[in-house]
Amino acid sequence: MSHNSFGHLFRFTSWGESHGPAIGCVVDGCPPRIALGENDIQPWLDRRRPGQSRFTTQRQEPDQVRILSGVFEGRTTGTPIALTIENVDQRSRDYGNIADRYRPGHADLAYEMKYGIRDPRGGGRSSARETAVRVAAGAVARLVLGPDVSLRGALVQIGPHAIDRARWDWDEVGRNPFFCPDPAIVPLWEDYLDMVRKSGSSAGAIIELQAEGVPAGLGAPIYAKLDADIAAALMGINAVKAVEIGDGFAAALSSGEQNADTMHMADGRIIFDANHAGGILGGISTGQPIVARFAVKPTSSILTPVRSVTRSGEDATVSTHGRHDPCVGIRAVPVGEAMLACVLADHLLRDRAQNPR
Amino acid sequence: MSHNSFGHLFRFTSWGESHGPAIGCVVDGCPPRIALGENDIQPWLDRRRPGQSRFTTQRQEPDQVRILSGVFEGRTTGTPIALTIENVDQRSRDYGNIADRYRPGHADLAYEMKYGIRDPRGGGRSSARETAVRVAAGAVARLVLGPDVSLRGALVQIGPHAIDRARWDWDEVGRNPFFCPDPAIVPLWEDYLDMVRKSGSSAGAIIELQAEGVPAGLGAPIYAKLDADIAAALMGINAVKAVEIGDGFAAALSSGEQNADTMHMADGRIIFDANHAGGILGGISTGQPIVARFAVKPTSSILTPVRSVTRSGEDATVSTHGRHDPCVGIRAVPVGEAMLACVLADHLLRDRAQNPR
Amino acid sequence: MSHNSFGHLFRFTSWGESHGPAIGCVVDGCPPRIALGENDIQPWLDRRRPGQSRFTTQRQEPDQVRILSGVFEGRTTGTPIALTIENVDQRSRDYGNIADRYRPGHADLAYEMKYGIRDPRGGGRSSARETAVRVAAGAVARLVLGPDVSLRGALVQIGPHAIDRARWDWDEVGRNPFFCPDPAIVPLWEDYLDMVRKSGSSAGAIIELQAEGVPAGLGAPIYAKLDADIAAALMGINAVKAVEIGDGFAAALSSGEQNADTMHMADGRIIFDANHAGGILGGISTGQPIVARFAVKPTSSILTPVRSVTRSGEDATVSTHGRHDPCVGIRAVPVGEAMLACVLADHLLRDRAQNPR
Amino acid sequence: MSHNSFGHLFRFTSWGESHGPAIGCVVDGCPPRIALGENDIQPWLDRRRPGQSRFTTQRQEPDQVRILSGVFEGRTTGTPIALTIENVDQRSRDYGNIADRYRPGHADLAYEMKYGIRDPRGGGRSSARETAVRVAAGAVARLVLGPDVSLRGALVQIGPHAIDRARWDWDEVGRNPFFCPDPAIVPLWEDYLDMVRKSGSSAGAIIELQAEGVPAGLGAPIYAKLDADIAAALMGINAVKAVEIGDGFAAALSSGEQNADTMHMADGRIIFDANHAGGILGGISTGQPIVARFAVKPTSSILTPVRSVTRSGEDATVSTHGRHDPCVGIRAVPVGEAMLACVLADHLLRDRAQNPR
Repeated sequence: MSHNSFGHLFRFTSWGESHGPAIGCVVDGCPPRIALGENDIQPWLDRRRPGQSRFTTQRQEPDQVRILSGVFEGRTTGTPIALTIENVDQRSRDYGNIADRYRPGHADLAYEMKYGIRDPRGGGRSSARETAVRVAAGAVARLVLGPDVSLRGALVQIGPHAIDRARWDWDEVGRNPFFCPDPAIVPLWEDYLDMVRKSGSSAGAIIELQAEGVPAGLGAPIYAKLDADIAAALMGINAVKAVEIGDGFAAALSSGEQNADTMHMADGRIIFDANHAGGILGGISTGQPIVARFAVKPTSSILTPVRSVTRSGEDATVSTHGRHDPCVGIRAVPVGEAMLACVLADHLLRDRAQNPR
Repeated sequence: MSHNSFGHLFRFTSWGESHGPAIGCVVDGCPPRIALGENDIQPWLDRRRPGQSRFTTQRQEPDQVRILSGVFEGRTTGTPIALTIENVDQRSRDYGNIADRYRPGHADLAYEMKYGIRDPRGGGRSSARETAVRVAAGAVARLVLGPDVSLRGALVQIGPHAIDRARWDWDEVGRNPFFCPDPAIVPLWEDYLDMVRKSGSSAGAIIELQAEGVPAGLGAPIYAKLDADIAAALMGINAVKAVEIGDGFAAALSSGEQNADTMHMADGRIIFDANHAGGILGGISTGQPIVARFAVKPTSSILTPVRSVTRSGEDATVSTHGRHDPCVGIRAVPVGEAMLACVLADHLLRDRAQNPR
Repeated sequence: MSHNSFGHLFRFTSWGESHGPAIGCVVDGCPPRIALGENDIQPWLDRRRPGQSRFTTQRQEPDQVRILSGVFEGRTTGTPIALTIENVDQRSRDYGNIADRYRPGHADLAYEMKYGIRDPRGGGRSSARETAVRVAAGAVARLVLGPDVSLRGALVQIGPHAIDRARWDWDEVGRNPFFCPDPAIVPLWEDYLDMVRKSGSSAGAIIELQAEGVPAGLGAPIYAKLDADIAAALMGINAVKAVEIGDGFAAALSSGEQNADTMHMADGRIIFDANHAGGILGGISTGQPIVARFAVKPTSSILTPVRSVTRSGEDATVSTHGRHDPCVGIRAVPVGEAMLACVLADHLLRDRAQNPR
Repeated sequence: MSHNSFGHLFRFTSWGESHGPAIGCVVDGCPPRIALGENDIQPWLDRRRPGQSRFTTQRQEPDQVRILSGVFEGRTTGTPIALTIENVDQRSRDYGNIADRYRPGHADLAYEMKYGIRDPRGGGRSSARETAVRVAAGAVARLVLGPDVSLRGALVQIGPHAIDRARWDWDEVGRNPFFCPDPAIVPLWEDYLDMVRKSGSSAGAIIELQAEGVPAGLGAPIYAKLDADIAAALMGINAVKAVEIGDGFAAALSSGEQNADTMHMADGRIIFDANHAGGILGGISTGQPIVARFAVKPTSSILTPVRSVTRSGEDATVSTHGRHDPCVGIRAVPVGEAMLACVLADHLLRDRAQNPR
């Protein structure tokens, strides 16, 4: 049991604070003889990297990953893979004024009530900066899953503005600063987020993940269900408040017949007529695409003053002048993908242990 | 790591199938010297017991719990508490016709693809019957949490029919067969479910849980967040497809100012002005009420024929004549409460280990 | 993490006290489709059963195992296997006089200091009776290992009387009440133990385990070493005070050349010239026989009065009139075998997860 | 579950190879607000550091530890503590000749059979160099245990030469290069090891650990026994082949009366008359000193040629010219202390979770 480890057989242990010298993780349990270099990880980090558009924080971090162990002559050895990322642009001065007060929506108060101590510089351990190591671990997980698994994510809603799913085009996701699959909504989102940012506010978002090619049989009853582990993985991302699989909340409104993913035979194979279940039944993958969505609340750090209290017990206001994402949900897309990749890689190994094929 | 254990320090391991001789669990890690008898568990099981109204399955199970270990002279000893519940009314003949085909929405196909074998009697291990042991374990968890924690649940929506939250009255929950806090909607739900049942269909539902009096400081960064563990616990209940904490998906639509749970001082204490976060910030409880909701899909076992395939690879239809809940979400209320109780008890012990107070 | 579970992927969770209604365990993670019935477990329990000679306790327990879940039509389903054994011959009256005082060498005082409460009937949870469920779980583990693994144990020393290893004959182990591989020493042990028993004393013992046919590659660096897990498994058996692998303590006396298990090629295969390492190098099995030994202290329950103190803090003497083994090490042979089988089955699954072959 | 993590609530995850850029570990679960700086760790590393006498390897490593996270303004924050130690003096050329053959007694063959790949430089992950991070983690564990726990170790035997326990003086341990508590045997050991080294051989050793001031109640039945966890911790150190607690193997030779740690009252407290049990009964600490011993085999890397085989399946000889410890058991003293400290710190937290005092 560890508070800072994720997964069981494919497992990573994360460390580091926003304003310390570095952040990193140790990936344990990776199968041996997988080709792995820093070049396999860096592109995923680059997707998450801040400062790439005016819609994300202007903190400049090269986020260069370094592999310190577990790889010999370009291949994994089965021993732990230590990954580190230096913190370069940590301007602690930005945060001096928040050390003495609790920012609403942040972990400040909760940490202090739990531990009696808190590193206030940039949110310390609670900074979204920690998600960089998740992306790095997720890059390794993708290699464990192999090329047959196609795992990708998209932003499907910012604030009240949802995409038109009829226009969904995966190729568009890489062509705009939002990971948006609907090109027609991009200008609207740009205008909306410009307005949000200029007014000193922030916006929430909804992300959708899909994994195709996942083998049937991953997951396990009763307390190792694949959907339960995905729910934990996504809910554990900073600022996430909701998770759904397949039809999710909408399933509650449908009838048994509507919700049934009926099947028929075709060419000797079982064909599903729908995928309301999001690729998981009884906690176990069915071979259909795995579909999950999660909601990210609006960034809690905003310029608009909100009322709060100080550590010494006085009323106060908090107005955050630091460099922040007006919509932290955008950069949550690669983070969500990484977490899903880690869950799937873990369950691939877990299934293999009990059910050699 | 175990596929059938839940929790870490307060932990239970579940076993049993719907149509075996019994089901049960082993509760490990319970603190010693807690007064515990079967009478402390039975009332919670009775709330979940089937056959108490025409809106739940007519299977008749007394669900009598028996304590086989871990208690001496009426108090826990700190050693494992074995709980068993006999299966009395298992009519395997009801299920003979489904052994050879995969019921849509059920785990039949997934189990068979994973294990290459499946106990088809009543869903075997995947039966909602397993949730009885969760309720039993949850009853012990409530004793670990102690009387200061008030943990309760309510059904807030059946199919498209949501309650009016303005009429919420906790006292009503025990006065109708739906655990419904809004008495005005009960007749509508009765009519609706009668119609659903008579038409051979089924309905989904949404459940809301609230836990008041939870101490601040439970949960832990980064991969042991209280909300992540609640999400896994609720998503792991049979037929659940979505989970949200606090404002959940609605948070994605709000602005940073709207979503901020601002604070002020009153009588030397920190007072929150709202609880959009559902009592959890940065994965750690704040002392505010913990609020979680989850969605249950419509029961997959329906009388209306749906198309499917047989184990031997032929098209077929499935029509379930067994005794089933038209809305399995009703009985999910005590199950959801139990899972939340187990998460909180586990995190109470986990926090205590690192942060003695 | 669980205080009463053993193993990770092949895992069992034990419950029950000496004088409760039953003891049992839940075996989780067992691969599916393995033929399993009570008849596969009972013979191993019969080997450990008390009352089979005058050299073990006269408590009469049929130790009939019952499978309550996880098996369908004679094969495992991959779901948890619940095993129970009723307690039949629990004479609590034998123990009334020890409830108020701490028996030296027993867990009485330690339990009470830890938990502030203790079930004194027959040692409660600390009774050697709990080892029956280990043997039951071990029987399942043997099936997971399969017929190519030959795992057996023998008693090699009672008190000061060691066997002559030159006379080792595995076939003799089943022909005497001591699991002794050296028939020539059996009369001496009989006389010695008769003397020990009549004088109200007790004797210690040393057990040796061997596992042949264990595939190379089980175990893992650095904190999942096969030898470390074997050490924990054996040290965790009641009354065990020492464990060694291969040459064990004797290795400390040898030189690097003497201790080297040199190798040569023969018929295209690597042949070891010796097995000082006991089949494990760097925490990983090499394919050579795994050899482990463990020492059991003399039974702490003796007729001879020893001084002690009461719960109320007064000097007292303790003289145990209950039915006890004069040499608890004898019945530790099947228990040690079972624990080794569980470790190996667990590591077989663990290795398979990371290293599919 | 992790192959490279140790402990449960106080837990560290280790990474790194002998000849990579660095080694390190992540300590998770450390309580907050403990004063911690690099100066609290460095002295323990210095005790283990090579090259301090002619009796240890001449590899020169400053072993400077660096804290990268988890500490704010000189105190732990409750978040993970990342510790790194650079590898400075890695001369890979020394090992070129062993990449193609399996060194007897080393993990070379086992790793290759398990993973199909191996980092041969200096033993890679299996190098005793990894034990530096154990010592670093152990230094943190000592702070968790606090000043009331006195934990120390000593070398009690080299090859056939055991100390005279009547001359035991803890103060002497720091005054000779062997951590030897018996000054009279030091000259003999010097001569013996000089002879061993010059003859191209190596020697084994036995280490004894004692921990005084450990509170009663640590450990837990049945599969979390303190002695079982100590056994695993010590057996998991490189080259260890045997572990015993208290009287250990000698207990097997004694009678029930001799082995009884009888008690009497004095000044209202329970006084033990002996400590054959080594401070642990029923897997739980009693408050008496915890005593454990472990045996280290002679260093497998020796100058004397021993026969072996190559990776391509040919007979060969191995003669190790690298810089090695003639008696690796010497530097195992601080490593054993560290592992014991980690076990005790882990169990302190585990006990506290279930049994708040």
